[in-house]
Amino acid sequence: MDIISLHQLLTSVADGKTSVEDAATSLARLPFENIDYARIDHHRSLRKGFPEVIFGQGKTAEQIAGIMEKMRVQENVILVTRVDAEKAESVIARTPDVKYHPDARMLILKQGDIPIHGRGNILILSAGTSDIPVAREAQLTAEAMGNHVETIFDVGVAGIHRLLHYRKQIEEATVLIVVAGMEGALPSVVAGMVSRPVIAVPTSIGYGVSFGGLTALFAMLNSCSSNVAVVNIDNGFGAGYMAAMINRT
Amino acid sequence: MDIISLHQLLTSVADGKTSVEDAATSLARLPFENIDYARIDHHRSLRKGFPEVIFGQGKTAEQIAGIMEKMRVQENVILVTRVDAEKAESVIARTPDVKYHPDARMLILKQGDIPIHGRGNILILSAGTSDIPVAREAQLTAEAMGNHVETIFDVGVAGIHRLLHYRKQIEEATVLIVVAGMEGALPSVVAGMVSRPVIAVPTSIGYGVSFGGLTALFAMLNSCSSNVAVVNIDNGFGAGYMAAMINRT
Amino acid sequence: MDIISLHQLLTSVADGKTSVEDAATSLARLPFENIDYARIDHHRSLRKGFPEVIFGQGKTAEQIAGIMEKMRVQENVILVTRVDAEKAESVIARTPDVKYHPDARMLILKQGDIPIHGRGNILILSAGTSDIPVAREAQLTAEAMGNHVETIFDVGVAGIHRLLHYRKQIEEATVLIVVAGMEGALPSVVAGMVSRPVIAVPTSIGYGVSFGGLTALFAMLNSCSSNVAVVNIDNGFGAGYMAAMINRT
Amino acid sequence: MDIISLHQLLTSVADGKTSVEDAATSLARLPFENIDYARIDHHRSLRKGFPEVIFGQGKTAEQIAGIMEKMRVQENVILVTRVDAEKAESVIARTPDVKYHPDARMLILKQGDIPIHGRGNILILSAGTSDIPVAREAQLTAEAMGNHVETIFDVGVAGIHRLLHYRKQIEEATVLIVVAGMEGALPSVVAGMVSRPVIAVPTSIGYGVSFGGLTALFAMLNSCSSNVAVVNIDNGFGAGYMAAMINRT
Amino acid sequence: MDIISLHQLLTSVADGKTSVEDAATSLARLPFENIDYARIDHHRSLRKGFPEVIFGQGKTAEQIAGIMEKMRVQENVILVTRVDAEKAESVIARTPDVKYHPDARMLILKQGDIPIHGRGNILILSAGTSDIPVAREAQLTAEAMGNHVETIFDVGVAGIHRLLHYRKQIEEATVLIVVAGMEGALPSVVAGMVSRPVIAVPTSIGYGVSFGGLTALFAMLNSCSSNVAVVNIDNGFGAGYMAAMINRT
Amino acid sequence: MDIISLHQLLTSVADGKTSVEDAATSLARLPFENIDYARIDHHRSLRKGFPEVIFGQGKTAEQIAGIMEKMRVQENVILVTRVDAEKAESVIARTPDVKYHPDARMLILKQGDIPIHGRGNILILSAGTSDIPVAREAQLTAEAMGNHVETIFDVGVAGIHRLLHYRKQIEEATVLIVVAGMEGALPSVVAGMVSRPVIAVPTSIGYGVSFGGLTALFAMLNSCSSNVAVVNIDNGFGAGYMAAMINRT
Amino acid sequence: MDIISLHQLLTSVADGKTSVEDAATSLARLPFENIDYARIDHHRSLRKGFPEVIFGQGKTAEQIAGIMEKMRVQENVILVTRVDAEKAESVIARTPDVKYHPDARMLILKQGDIPIHGRGNILILSAGTSDIPVAREAQLTAEAMGNHVETIFDVGVAGIHRLLHYRKQIEEATVLIVVAGMEGALPSVVAGMVSRPVIAVPTSIGYGVSFGGLTALFAMLNSCSSNVAVVNIDNGFGAGYMAAMINRT
Amino acid sequence: MDIISLHQLLTSVADGKTSVEDAATSLARLPFENIDYARIDHHRSLRKGFPEVIFGQGKTAEQIAGIMEKMRVQENVILVTRVDAEKAESVIARTPDVKYHPDARMLILKQGDIPIHGRGNILILSAGTSDIPVAREAQLTAEAMGNHVETIFDVGVAGIHRLLHYRKQIEEATVLIVVAGMEGALPSVVAGMVSRPVIAVPTSIGYGVSFGGLTALFAMLNSCSSNVAVVNIDNGFGAGYMAAMINRT
Repeated sequence: MDIISLHQLLTSVADGKTSVEDAATSLARLPFENIDYARIDHHRSLRKGFPEVIFGQGKTAEQIAGIMEKMRVQENVILVTRVDAEKAESVIARTPDVKYHPDARMLILKQGDIPIHGRGNILILSAGTSDIPVAREAQLTAEAMGNHVETIFDVGVAGIHRLLHYRKQIEEATVLIVVAGMEGALPSVVAGMVSRPVIAVPTSIGYGVSFGGLTALFAMLNSCSSNVAVVNIDNGFGAGYMAAMINRT
Repeated sequence: MDIISLHQLLTSVADGKTSVEDAATSLARLPFENIDYARIDHHRSLRKGFPEVIFGQGKTAEQIAGIMEKMRVQENVILVTRVDAEKAESVIARTPDVKYHPDARMLILKQGDIPIHGRGNILILSAGTSDIPVAREAQLTAEAMGNHVETIFDVGVAGIHRLLHYRKQIEEATVLIVVAGMEGALPSVVAGMVSRPVIAVPTSIGYGVSFGGLTALFAMLNSCSSNVAVVNIDNGFGAGYMAAMINRT
Repeated sequence: MDIISLHQLLTSVADGKTSVEDAATSLARLPFENIDYARIDHHRSLRKGFPEVIFGQGKTAEQIAGIMEKMRVQENVILVTRVDAEKAESVIARTPDVKYHPDARMLILKQGDIPIHGRGNILILSAGTSDIPVAREAQLTAEAMGNHVETIFDVGVAGIHRLLHYRKQIEEATVLIVVAGMEGALPSVVAGMVSRPVIAVPTSIGYGVSFGGLTALFAMLNSCSSNVAVVNIDNGFGAGYMAAMINRT
Repeated sequence: MDIISLHQLLTSVADGKTSVEDAATSLARLPFENIDYARIDHHRSLRKGFPEVIFGQGKTAEQIAGIMEKMRVQENVILVTRVDAEKAESVIARTPDVKYHPDARMLILKQGDIPIHGRGNILILSAGTSDIPVAREAQLTAEAMGNHVETIFDVGVAGIHRLLHYRKQIEEATVLIVVAGMEGALPSVVAGMVSRPVIAVPTSIGYGVSFGGLTALFAMLNSCSSNVAVVNIDNGFGAGYMAAMINRT
Repeated sequence: MDIISLHQLLTSVADGKTSVEDAATSLARLPFENIDYARIDHHRSLRKGFPEVIFGQGKTAEQIAGIMEKMRVQENVILVTRVDAEKAESVIARTPDVKYHPDARMLILKQGDIPIHGRGNILILSAGTSDIPVAREAQLTAEAMGNHVETIFDVGVAGIHRLLHYRKQIEEATVLIVVAGMEGALPSVVAGMVSRPVIAVPTSIGYGVSFGGLTALFAMLNSCSSNVAVVNIDNGFGAGYMAAMINRT
Repeated sequence: MDIISLHQLLTSVADGKTSVEDAATSLARLPFENIDYARIDHHRSLRKGFPEVIFGQGKTAEQIAGIMEKMRVQENVILVTRVDAEKAESVIARTPDVKYHPDARMLILKQGDIPIHGRGNILILSAGTSDIPVAREAQLTAEAMGNHVETIFDVGVAGIHRLLHYRKQIEEATVLIVVAGMEGALPSVVAGMVSRPVIAVPTSIGYGVSFGGLTALFAMLNSCSSNVAVVNIDNGFGAGYMAAMINRT
Repeated sequence: MDIISLHQLLTSVADGKTSVEDAATSLARLPFENIDYARIDHHRSLRKGFPEVIFGQGKTAEQIAGIMEKMRVQENVILVTRVDAEKAESVIARTPDVKYHPDARMLILKQGDIPIHGRGNILILSAGTSDIPVAREAQLTAEAMGNHVETIFDVGVAGIHRLLHYRKQIEEATVLIVVAGMEGALPSVVAGMVSRPVIAVPTSIGYGVSFGGLTALFAMLNSCSSNVAVVNIDNGFGAGYMAAMINRT
Repeated sequence: MDIISLHQLLTSVADGKTSVEDAATSLARLPFENIDYARIDHHRSLRKGFPEVIFGQGKTAEQIAGIMEKMRVQENVILVTRVDAEKAESVIARTPDVKYHPDARMLILKQGDIPIHGRGNILILSAGTSDIPVAREAQLTAEAMGNHVETIFDVGVAGIHRLLHYRKQIEEATVLIVVAGMEGALPSVVAGMVSRPVIAVPTSIGYGVSFGGLTALFAMLNSCSSNVAVVNIDNGFGAGYMAAMINRT
């Protein structure tokens, strides 16, 4: 309900074409759909340029499939995050055209090709091989939102020459996502090399005082490089989404 | 043993109707029942208006059934919280007329209808679909205590228009319970809309720095709205109980 | 802008008495006042039954006095919390009719008597003498909101007979506020004695693993008594506000 | 090797009855037995009045049985703590005369009756039914060390009359062990009633901000009663051991 | 009000010597004194063998002096803990016969000699010189409660021979208090040498991950020696009190 | 030293115009200046589009002035963050043309006008009046980097209508910075309204379980809106820098 | 690519033997191998004296085997850490000549004997039997790196005479690794006995406030002995590696 | 008292040259000096190759001077750490030949030149200018222990070329100390460049989630480079001491 529609509605009331009761109802009605266990925000696509993404954790397969059923009427692509293999199987039994990506633990339903919207390349770097699943979640998200995405995995700071080898590719990206666990040092080094925004993603890889990613998170928030902002631990999805937003700006 | 009974007892001693020994015993005796592994507080119903609620965690099915056996002699409704499906089945094998609510993980034994005591409506809102189990625990508790309860699920702050849509229903409630995980922002927004007490319930939904609900809890305790008080993480039961207390006031 | 006003406005548009432009402006306009460093929410008194309370921490004396200046045009009583003595003096120099309460660290501006709105008594208990300042903040807040408030200080659980002595007064209160530092055990014991809502307020009194009140807070959230809800550490104001809300219900 | 033995040894050297080499060896030799994966401290019984207790966590059944095999040559009673049912079964297969106590998760090998050494009674109280396993570990330990032990379970502070009912028994104990989870308030109340040392044991019973017993632990360390000292979470063994030490003093 | 007094009172009522009203009042009356900001627990001396100790933190000098004024009517010795030099001076101005111990930050008022009640010696060891103030608080407390106290300071584990030098004195103590900051290792080593109860006191001495004494506290709670119980950080008073309780047992 | 320069250098060596020794030196030499206590990164302006920003915390006024002295030869604008008033005065005594902004605690040295580089508007919102200093640091930084910046202060979620009032201005911004303390809910609500990247800045405003901004930080990282990335607590500078990077993209 | 090679390359360019293009490529090329999910750092052996060690956690068996396949072409010995039994079996199915050490959870592939490089003995002590797996990981690592390693297990501080028994062996070691869980006191005592570097390894053995090894870690970092440095919890590998580095110095 | 002396003593007893009493005394006597508030460990120099270092925190100037007085009889160099300027002045008034280093907050008393013992160079790197005081404490300690020390300050990872510039100097050091605050990334990068032991020192430089150095500490413990061991936050002294131990090995 934007300002233009508001004027039209009020003009229509002024002209007697719309009754006061109807206008009041219309002004009060908001574009979402109530299926008891969920209020599906159909307005989001309009408002935010991308439909609601289903957070799979804590939802039953029935609920996920039910929400997808309602959303697919209007949306070209639907993402579900944080779905384990068993639940995914159960969703696919109900919605066969959805595809499961086990490494990223995502379900993706595409009802057509996704055109490229982003103006430049999004580059995703990971510090280690073990960080790849989170990087993959970022990649799938950014691609689903219409971006060209490149990846460079396993270029942690303990062998700095591996990173420096990719200096050119790093400098040419429009937005960078840097995924790292353990001490989370990679974003600082990468951000120090470029004049582009860097989204840092801590991962839960590590043990002892890695605290399930907390140390990497705090290290990234303390980065001595200033062009770094951070998302939640293992939140590849959020990083991909944020990068897509920036790339569209 | 209220002050009137004390006077009556002492008068009875003064009148020689009650012996000193009996009075001493009576003054010392307290209304609970000892079944070795539990001291059942039969006095509670009288004192607090609702019988003791059995905390299921860490108790065996035998212990739960044993306590219910003693309580049902005196009580119309008995609640058991935090019971997983397997333990519930084992309790039901011993006490067949108890009903299990798997989403709320509660066992409820009703021996008759529960009259409505509360003066107004209790409204329960949840931020997401994944928060519903905790909301359900609050609902079942408040209903078992004789209240009319309404629910609105999945109205989180990322699509604020969904919440605003229910403004009238929100403003008409007597007490509100707001259930949210992740950043726990919903209680602040809801409390800002009403002049009623809001009980905020953080849930363990989330990952990374949600810390199993700790972030939502702390956010709610820091609410910039003043008509908010908070219960423990995932403590739907406590929220329902507290709301019932307020609604009865 | 309630639903009745909306109908009136739309009727007025339908009747041609209000132009479309004016109605759009009116619908968009919201009742707050912009003084650059603050958006004063004049609407709050209408919406929540009590005007905005000024959070003194982090504001300059100039800002506090400036906000009070705007608010006093409309409000009968204005509260400012978390003001140290030096800042209070500086505010009073600008607004001489405001009164400072050093123990509660509050500034209160009253422009008339405050009628009693609450239906019953609010009883405030403190575990120790050192907890009195926080209890006082709760007391001043609840009184400013039109409640009759009683207090019992220094009845901690280490000498349980002191608490039991006040059993009658405790049982007769409509809402209870229990203030405690250190191990924060008092709310559990008090709540076990009554069938009324208890607002627990942890204080920062203690040392070592009292963690500035965190232990008391967590103990209260873990209360084995169910009629307890909790506010932030040292948040006497919030407890008084919440109790007033409940007492008005 | 006490001071008398030292004199005897040196006298023996002075008298030429012991060679310098032998004396050096003897002075250097210390009374423990090396079985590669363990240095069994046979000296402990002499030094501390009770043999080494085997900490079962992180040891294999082979290692536990191996250590017991060596210890049983010298000791009348052997305790193993923190053994789950599966590992216990595997130990019993190797050492059939050991007895498993599943609630306390202890293995106990007795090779004779244990005489009562303690001068008074040790009284163990638990706040809830769910705390019984930890209380049982304390009980078994103190009994194995030759003490008379009494127990009162499920007398939490939410129904304070249950506790007051046992006032006489509480006042007559020589040492008290108080076991509680959740808010851990019981030790403060009990300690306030007696002039005896109270050992407080926090348990991991609870959820949310009980933090697996941390809140109860911190509450107990902050007790406003001064005759309280605390052991680790769920450390019934340590409490029983400490109480036995005090009761023997 | 013990069970004998209860019988006497009831007999007196039965005999008509005491009126029902008087008996009711008498049963309800509890032995504490209300001076508004404090409920002085005169009963404590009777119940616990030592009068209430005043916790100085968060109390004004007026409040401390006021409480002492009431207590001195009945008590031979009064302790006030956690009083800084400035506040102490202000109390002494009001109560000249009180003595301030700056290292222990205690005020002590003695109205006569304190006879020795304890059966054995209490030995206090400190790991470092910087831990002495906390050790001193324990010493003053235990002495005020009628115990013979010995001290050995600066025998930390980095030079284990210093500790072993005092082996005989250590073995002869009835109760031991071990005070240590930093890694808090001393209580484990000392407790391993004796068959007596050890009260461990963590201090806030250290920096970085000493966390103001938290690391020492946790280390002590994790002691591999079983005859160790722990009090709060820097709580020399509590350790002295607990040791006195044990020594009196 | 980019790839073109490398080719030129090597060509020059191939042509004999540059000696091997000189080339080796040149390849090894990197563009920073060593003034003992600092290695000034003159290369940064070239590499990152903005000169090194001086982190004032922990540096002496002498060091700050010394670094500025070297930088001003090459740079048009120099920022120093986290400088308190006293240190600022001492720096200004050495470098009179630097300007101090006390609310943002920044020193800024401008040697000319700063042209606007950013393509759109950066909008900074703050939840409360007390958050303004951090917002101001973001504003000064983004402006110094050549952006047009707008601000809306004190639009916290407790009076959501104030925020909705600015919906149009919010929707038109290219990048948004949202500054909030306490429960940190504002970024989620704002991000839910727009399809632009939102940089969330937690502030240390609050008390108790605000943990100096930690709760706000964690709430923001848990945002249920996906177009949010976060910087360190009170890091207005970093937010302004990151927003400038995005706005330049 | 060391400084000598650089000179040779540049001389070759100067002499016309190497084209500019080839030199540029050569300077840019760095010695690692890209197998998509990993950048294998073949340069490490040269640079650090030991090949890259594979961190098994979070990697699939396919990835581990794939990396080994590439490394074995060049390396004599390959270590894989943090591999559970199931994954190990799956790797061995692909790479039959690798050997699994279940206690240390390591896979080791040796393609020849490992000569002794270290100058002295590395001595590994463990406080308890339960700490042996971590000690074993340290042992296997140090041996694989060419050191002579000795071990003494189960010499915790609760029976200090066991430790003192090995004083000579302890004093003769060149580097010491001390492994301990619970209160982590052993490194302080051992370090106090020697003039050699001590690497302290906290283990996750313990419960309650052992916090999975955190307490031991912090205790070790707070050691009152100065010749102690610490590695991550359960990081036997890191300790072995560091000790090997020191022993080679 | 080494094994040779023991033999000599026992031989002397066997020969009748030493009486049994004298030998017993001699065996029991240990080489430390008792000055009431301290047990000075004169044995340490012999045992550990360097005298006891005085930890200044929590000690009075009198105590520090008193300990120095006793130590200077035997020792060539005495270090006191963690002394603020005011306390230093007070110590110097008592011991005029001691020198204060304000940046490192150390007092050093030298009674002669210190010969170089170390075999190679110790190199100290700091990430930022603000980390220099901690680096200086390491430097002064290592130099006092007879080492040649080099320093490179302000080479943080945000401008990686500055670090790479010093590659040769870094590779030539025997032991490296790397000092960093904020995200603590520098040790990982440096350790990845060398085959030498690296001692990492976290500093408390930073704000927000730097947690006073905790984030840097945890990052360093999680280093993906294996030749890193860590000391406590701001513990430059410990790093210098440990490096000296390694350099002497």
